[in-house]
Amino acid sequence: MVDISASSKWHEECGVFGAYSHTEDVSLMTYLGLYALQHRGQESAGIAITDGAWMDVTRGMGLVNEVFRHQLPHMDNQYIAIGHVRYSTTGSSLLANTQPLMVNYAGGKISLAHNGNLTNASQIRREMEEQGNVFQTSIDTEVFVNLIAKSKQPAIEDKVMESLKKIKGAYCLTIMTENKLIGARDPHGFRPLCIGKSDTAWVLSSESCALEVAGVKYVRDVEPGELVVIDKDGLKSYKFAEVEKKAACIFEYIYFARPDSVIDGQCVHDARFMMGRILARESGFKGDVVISVPDSGTTAATGFAYESGIPFIEGLIKNRYIGRTFIQPTQKKRDTAVKLKLGAIVSAVKDKDVIMVDDSIVRGTTSGKIVRMLRNAGAKSIKMCVSSPPIGYPCYYGIDTSIRKELIAATKSVDEIREYIGADALHFLSIDGLKQSISEANSDDMCYACFNNSYPVELPKDDAVGADKYVFEHAKKK
Amino acid sequence: MVDISASSKWHEECGVFGAYSHTEDVSLMTYLGLYALQHRGQESAGIAITDGAWMDVTRGMGLVNEVFRHQLPHMDNQYIAIGHVRYSTTGSSLLANTQPLMVNYAGGKISLAHNGNLTNASQIRREMEEQGNVFQTSIDTEVFVNLIAKSKQPAIEDKVMESLKKIKGAYCLTIMTENKLIGARDPHGFRPLCIGKSDTAWVLSSESCALEVAGVKYVRDVEPGELVVIDKDGLKSYKFAEVEKKAACIFEYIYFARPDSVIDGQCVHDARFMMGRILARESGFKGDVVISVPDSGTTAATGFAYESGIPFIEGLIKNRYIGRTFIQPTQKKRDTAVKLKLGAIVSAVKDKDVIMVDDSIVRGTTSGKIVRMLRNAGAKSIKMCVSSPPIGYPCYYGIDTSIRKELIAATKSVDEIREYIGADALHFLSIDGLKQSISEANSDDMCYACFNNSYPVELPKDDAVGADKYVFEHAKKK
Amino acid sequence: MVDISASSKWHEECGVFGAYSHTEDVSLMTYLGLYALQHRGQESAGIAITDGAWMDVTRGMGLVNEVFRHQLPHMDNQYIAIGHVRYSTTGSSLLANTQPLMVNYAGGKISLAHNGNLTNASQIRREMEEQGNVFQTSIDTEVFVNLIAKSKQPAIEDKVMESLKKIKGAYCLTIMTENKLIGARDPHGFRPLCIGKSDTAWVLSSESCALEVAGVKYVRDVEPGELVVIDKDGLKSYKFAEVEKKAACIFEYIYFARPDSVIDGQCVHDARFMMGRILARESGFKGDVVISVPDSGTTAATGFAYESGIPFIEGLIKNRYIGRTFIQPTQKKRDTAVKLKLGAIVSAVKDKDVIMVDDSIVRGTTSGKIVRMLRNAGAKSIKMCVSSPPIGYPCYYGIDTSIRKELIAATKSVDEIREYIGADALHFLSIDGLKQSISEANSDDMCYACFNNSYPVELPKDDAVGADKYVFEHAKKK
Amino acid sequence: MVDISASSKWHEECGVFGAYSHTEDVSLMTYLGLYALQHRGQESAGIAITDGAWMDVTRGMGLVNEVFRHQLPHMDNQYIAIGHVRYSTTGSSLLANTQPLMVNYAGGKISLAHNGNLTNASQIRREMEEQGNVFQTSIDTEVFVNLIAKSKQPAIEDKVMESLKKIKGAYCLTIMTENKLIGARDPHGFRPLCIGKSDTAWVLSSESCALEVAGVKYVRDVEPGELVVIDKDGLKSYKFAEVEKKAACIFEYIYFARPDSVIDGQCVHDARFMMGRILARESGFKGDVVISVPDSGTTAATGFAYESGIPFIEGLIKNRYIGRTFIQPTQKKRDTAVKLKLGAIVSAVKDKDVIMVDDSIVRGTTSGKIVRMLRNAGAKSIKMCVSSPPIGYPCYYGIDTSIRKELIAATKSVDEIREYIGADALHFLSIDGLKQSISEANSDDMCYACFNNSYPVELPKDDAVGADKYVFEHAKKK
Repeated sequence: MVDISASSKWHEECGVFGAYSHTEDVSLMTYLGLYALQHRGQESAGIAITDGAWMDVTRGMGLVNEVFRHQLPHMDNQYIAIGHVRYSTTGSSLLANTQPLMVNYAGGKISLAHNGNLTNASQIRREMEEQGNVFQTSIDTEVFVNLIAKSKQPAIEDKVMESLKKIKGAYCLTIMTENKLIGARDPHGFRPLCIGKSDTAWVLSSESCALEVAGVKYVRDVEPGELVVIDKDGLKSYKFAEVEKKAACIFEYIYFARPDSVIDGQCVHDARFMMGRILARESGFKGDVVISVPDSGTTAATGFAYESGIPFIEGLIKNRYIGRTFIQPTQKKRDTAVKLKLGAIVSAVKDKDVIMVDDSIVRGTTSGKIVRMLRNAGAKSIKMCVSSPPIGYPCYYGIDTSIRKELIAATKSVDEIREYIGADALHFLSIDGLKQSISEANSDDMCYACFNNSYPVELPKDDAVGADKYVFEHAKKK
Repeated sequence: MVDISASSKWHEECGVFGAYSHTEDVSLMTYLGLYALQHRGQESAGIAITDGAWMDVTRGMGLVNEVFRHQLPHMDNQYIAIGHVRYSTTGSSLLANTQPLMVNYAGGKISLAHNGNLTNASQIRREMEEQGNVFQTSIDTEVFVNLIAKSKQPAIEDKVMESLKKIKGAYCLTIMTENKLIGARDPHGFRPLCIGKSDTAWVLSSESCALEVAGVKYVRDVEPGELVVIDKDGLKSYKFAEVEKKAACIFEYIYFARPDSVIDGQCVHDARFMMGRILARESGFKGDVVISVPDSGTTAATGFAYESGIPFIEGLIKNRYIGRTFIQPTQKKRDTAVKLKLGAIVSAVKDKDVIMVDDSIVRGTTSGKIVRMLRNAGAKSIKMCVSSPPIGYPCYYGIDTSIRKELIAATKSVDEIREYIGADALHFLSIDGLKQSISEANSDDMCYACFNNSYPVELPKDDAVGADKYVFEHAKKK
Repeated sequence: MVDISASSKWHEECGVFGAYSHTEDVSLMTYLGLYALQHRGQESAGIAITDGAWMDVTRGMGLVNEVFRHQLPHMDNQYIAIGHVRYSTTGSSLLANTQPLMVNYAGGKISLAHNGNLTNASQIRREMEEQGNVFQTSIDTEVFVNLIAKSKQPAIEDKVMESLKKIKGAYCLTIMTENKLIGARDPHGFRPLCIGKSDTAWVLSSESCALEVAGVKYVRDVEPGELVVIDKDGLKSYKFAEVEKKAACIFEYIYFARPDSVIDGQCVHDARFMMGRILARESGFKGDVVISVPDSGTTAATGFAYESGIPFIEGLIKNRYIGRTFIQPTQKKRDTAVKLKLGAIVSAVKDKDVIMVDDSIVRGTTSGKIVRMLRNAGAKSIKMCVSSPPIGYPCYYGIDTSIRKELIAATKSVDEIREYIGADALHFLSIDGLKQSISEANSDDMCYACFNNSYPVELPKDDAVGADKYVFEHAKKK
Repeated sequence: MVDISASSKWHEECGVFGAYSHTEDVSLMTYLGLYALQHRGQESAGIAITDGAWMDVTRGMGLVNEVFRHQLPHMDNQYIAIGHVRYSTTGSSLLANTQPLMVNYAGGKISLAHNGNLTNASQIRREMEEQGNVFQTSIDTEVFVNLIAKSKQPAIEDKVMESLKKIKGAYCLTIMTENKLIGARDPHGFRPLCIGKSDTAWVLSSESCALEVAGVKYVRDVEPGELVVIDKDGLKSYKFAEVEKKAACIFEYIYFARPDSVIDGQCVHDARFMMGRILARESGFKGDVVISVPDSGTTAATGFAYESGIPFIEGLIKNRYIGRTFIQPTQKKRDTAVKLKLGAIVSAVKDKDVIMVDDSIVRGTTSGKIVRMLRNAGAKSIKMCVSSPPIGYPCYYGIDTSIRKELIAATKSVDEIREYIGADALHFLSIDGLKQSISEANSDDMCYACFNNSYPVELPKDDAVGADKYVFEHAKKK
């Protein structure tokens, strides 16, 4: 089978959401919030709710509106809910790995939803297994919840904070007990998490774009190393770790987040638009038209056009109905997958010097197919601009990254990449240019490790294991 | 239940496709073709195939990749296939109304797929019923097939042509017998239909955007009043009607067709881009930024920006994962549906004079919500440009149009509409401007009836019946 | 794939039901009635309802409770319903062939459900096709409805009767118009159809076993050649044909009907019990125990035990959860299918002279496997008694019969059959014995054609076609 | 909704199976085995397999052939498999509670399937939670697997035995590691578990009726307190507990097990047949006919007929297609549910003195409806015989038993029960009679606690909790 929806992009693994309200429908709020966070994960969705005494979780494979096609979770007096969307993967135990994870422990019932990736989860898990623990899933969240359950601290806030001190890596968590909604963001602030509020409700959300549909206003971002606890007394804040070095994921601005989200004070759209402007300055590329690889390259392309004065025009059209298709590989024609996703507009590019903007190049295969498609459509020349530096190093903090040898920039120079994809010219945004693009946020508080190999968190020794999101599944496999 | 995917747009009803090849996989070609035509209909999909002796059809509710999730239709020696996608409607007999329709008649088996709407189907059907015919569906296609079966002509080509002479209205048909693939386009050429070819295959398709994925090259459009028959001897062309007045649907260029399609020699993207340029000239609107209502307003918006020199920027972001959602109306907050679909980028519009481009206004409700959303985001002023004239009259030729009283332009002046939607200024493209935009095609060969009440085909006497796509279902209902 | 639910029995094709009531829930009555008639068909189920103005049908593949798992058909003022269950077959157009069939014709809407098989349907259909008719299904019902629609008679009763005069073969029909419930039984009375009534409702049903669950009492059987019409004025009876020779299907008593049904005055259980008693007399078999092949052989076995004084004991246990299973043939072990369905009770048969009673032998394969299973379980001897005569001739009246060469009794003598199945002795009930068993009904009013080749209705000339229930599907196939 | 499949019977909770073979398809063997054990549980089914390095489990809601409709679990070199079927319940976390349960622990992967009920699971679980453990399901199996994981013993056999020593109650387990298939039966032998073998395969199965379809021969029952370990060296046996008092569940013989199974040397059918014979002696009832409540009363009824000389005849017919139906309670007519399941044969009981045999009476409601049905059918008198003593006490060992106040025999005398159900006479088999019926097994080695309140295992102090199979789910509920 061939999944023609398979992207050539890196993938975020998850989005999390939480709602607390004694008067609003927290289940519906969470549903709408997950809907707005759907771009962060399309594999599975889940919502856990509580009425203070009982707790229940509904999870399933598919988009939010597929999982909850027939009905939303409901209890008569529900007042807290958390939700989760997860990026599409393949694997043996798909359903078992959906979130939120709900368990019984000595303190009652607790549910967790997690976005990110722990770099020492494997080690903690091995230690726990050696002490007699069993694990039923292959997700980091199960490590978290076991740490919480093992904490001797009497209060749940302290249990959670004690547990967070033991873990390393990237995480944003929403946690629900029978009477509290808890959020936490790792000390480096790798992943985003923000707080929303109305007169009657509190919300936690991976991105601010989900606040308005949930009927609340943006309050602030959760700080790196901060734990927020929402209960009948309102919101309390705890600092569970010193922030040595903030290291927010720069790829949220480049590709992951929705353009209408604001993360740590920086509007995502504005950052992307500025990347395009700086690309225009850095590259100095001239041409007849600026086109984008839709949709992710469009914002930067409009910025490039703005800066350069070269008109932005649609040169490639995206099929809006692409989903999983199941065509036998033998039936597949060359380049069919990319042709199903994108169509070139001949009249827009024919006999033109085309500047094409995309957000990133991972393996280079798709870029090559698109360049070929434009050439077949008659483009005179194709200059490609990429609104991120070359990706030469894998990510250990929650992105479904290739192992290093699959990253084209790990083994090829820019000119070799240009040749590989068949463009007439190729320019990657410089790290400095990238930093300028996000000046609203503090551009020094970002993680650029995938570009410059400077990882803010100690890595697992065994590179192959650390880079492998299926580490728990594959450990025993021959 | 509220369907937040429900659009404020007019809807095309169908897309048709056909493939003939002794060496290629015609079932796969048709599947890929329907995939590329998915924008023409998302309610149901179907593929009929034949191996020369046996014929079979598979149909189902949903998108192409949902209906054929597990397997494609297959016969060992299949060499002809036709397919159909249909726009989402509601109704009592959904599955029964899916296409292609396959029947047995004296000449063997025959399958048909139809795009369009007959204006005298109701009358023919009544006459046939009076002669003792039964009808099992509520689709026009069943009228067609009965006419063909009743024809005394010996050859299938003549049967089809004799039948076509009896019907009025808009239609493009793909027809499959055990050894022929037949295409037909009504004498006014309301709906598009084109021919593709490779060394080993023939294809018929509603739009040219489906040709490349099927592995063939564009040859030409089927002419109005032309019947094409593809069999072992290649393609033969027959003229079954004189073309008094060609009247291709202008809305294919404004909204329906994919921008990368070329219809009757006119690239859809280029027409839309030019509509935007002329809008800029006609309106004379000035402002800080040009934004579009994505996705349908984007091409015209880039044209507006090109002509005016005002930068195009993304001011509204579309949620790419909108599908049907089933939220109780009572749970729905005001404007939630449009908020789920679109998010405003505050920094892009705040304190700016915004020019917003959309392709059409049908009822005006959604436009009003979007204007409100932009104002809440801080826009200083909002001038709206619409790349079509006011729609004051219903369509009888295959568009799922509202009855006239629901069309805002039928009862309100432009200034009243402006006030209703809350914009600071509003300009609709003039009919003349529209004609200039499609100069590549002969702009006099178009149907502008929804704008100017000049219908190229005699209408049914009973307006209520003629406008009602469910005429056969509702006729007996109290 | 191997369907281990596939029976070695002949199969009835259908059950029909109809309900008329202004105060009861006719949709629920029909649902419950079909539930009780489920043994007559497990492939598909459907219910059509009307409120006097609107008519709707819901049909699907599967058992009654699968098709109507989520909800029953419903209209606010529904007062007539008809329903249908169909025997499981395979074929290309399964869903299209489900019943009731609902169509529009000059007189409005009409729905039909049919049990039986027309011997001249193929001929009528060919004639109609030559006159320009199309057919969308491969079921006889579509021929019926076209005849009705073509009738020039003004009243629906007369239309139906005129149509029935043109057809030959076996049929029981329930027909629904917007204001009438109509039942008809063919002039030979091949298939059963009875009338039930309460103070508030009328019912038509294939078998009396469905009356009580529908809340009505048995009134009488519909007579051969009788049309009954139920409307606001109560029930009217019409005779549309002279009954030359009644010829009720004897297999309803042997195997098809539920034992608690009474058909034409004869209780099915009593007939089967008497078959067993007469088998005991005719065979004179002696032994230690009488066992049955459950469930169909059990009634006769208890009769055999009663007559002979030899104790009835369970020697074979049937797995109650057998459904379709999809095991690759290559994975299948010899005799696995029958072992999954039946288990021998070793202690009940070991070292015993066993008399085994079954209702019929069609191909003999399964009987052979069962005999082998008993022998492996240690039976000293196995004498097999069959409560029907050898089946030497196919059925043309609604049974899914093998073509003649597959009928073991068509090519083998009783002793050859005995040898083939490996029994120590074998006795088939004589036709005379069979006639004695059903003395409550007039045993001369039965069809014994499958035993004695004396067909009560003129057969189609082309035997191969006439015997083929898929005649309409296969006609064009190479 | 009304589930008309809901039985008036007690329900077994589970069936377990395991297969080990280097040459046979262990996945298929397990599938076929579960098919034959389907009567032990219809809610869910699951199969876990291993190839020695990897382990995977597939579980789902529904019957075996529904869960594995499309494909069986498969690995190229699979050689061990275990499977499980579970009785239908309702509850909040159905899917999470399906088995086999598969986990990772320090020793690798392990899967378990469990039949029975632990009386101290709740207590162990609370202790573990206090030590920091989390629980994700509400099934006892999760307690087992945590005990195993916590064991300090180096060998898996010893880990399992150490764990088993800590638990009390009823259990039969099949356990799979990457290289061993393990079976265990509790020291009282409450639930059955037997061993089968062929030249190429080993099998463990809840009942012997599943051995033949899996292609192996019965070897012996697993002994109470015995652990059997099957690996490349064949089968090894370990005794992990002294058997103070064997206490096999007598209800396996009365109702649960399939009649063709042999448990601990006693054929189930023979026991039931003998129960009927002794019933005849004890009751001394005379009458015209002996009928059974099918299917569970049939074997005893044939025994009664054998002993008494009164002919056995079918007086009630069971609808073979009863499944879940979803009828609104308001739509339901009185007694409709039992009428859908059973139909009386009027001619068999009319004007007769009827002796009706059933296996047990739990709440008495259904028996009352059946007696009423027979009376309506014209029975002169109805004497009811029950092949078990009155059930006055709940079961704590794996049966889904009512709480005590729902058991009719807990609060009513035999004569009061007779009056409640409306029979003319009523006889329950005595405990002594029951013991005689199973003389092949040692009748003293049985548990009769539900009849005589003599529980072989210490009960939990809190009766309400101990009797509640949903103890883990409900603990926190208000």
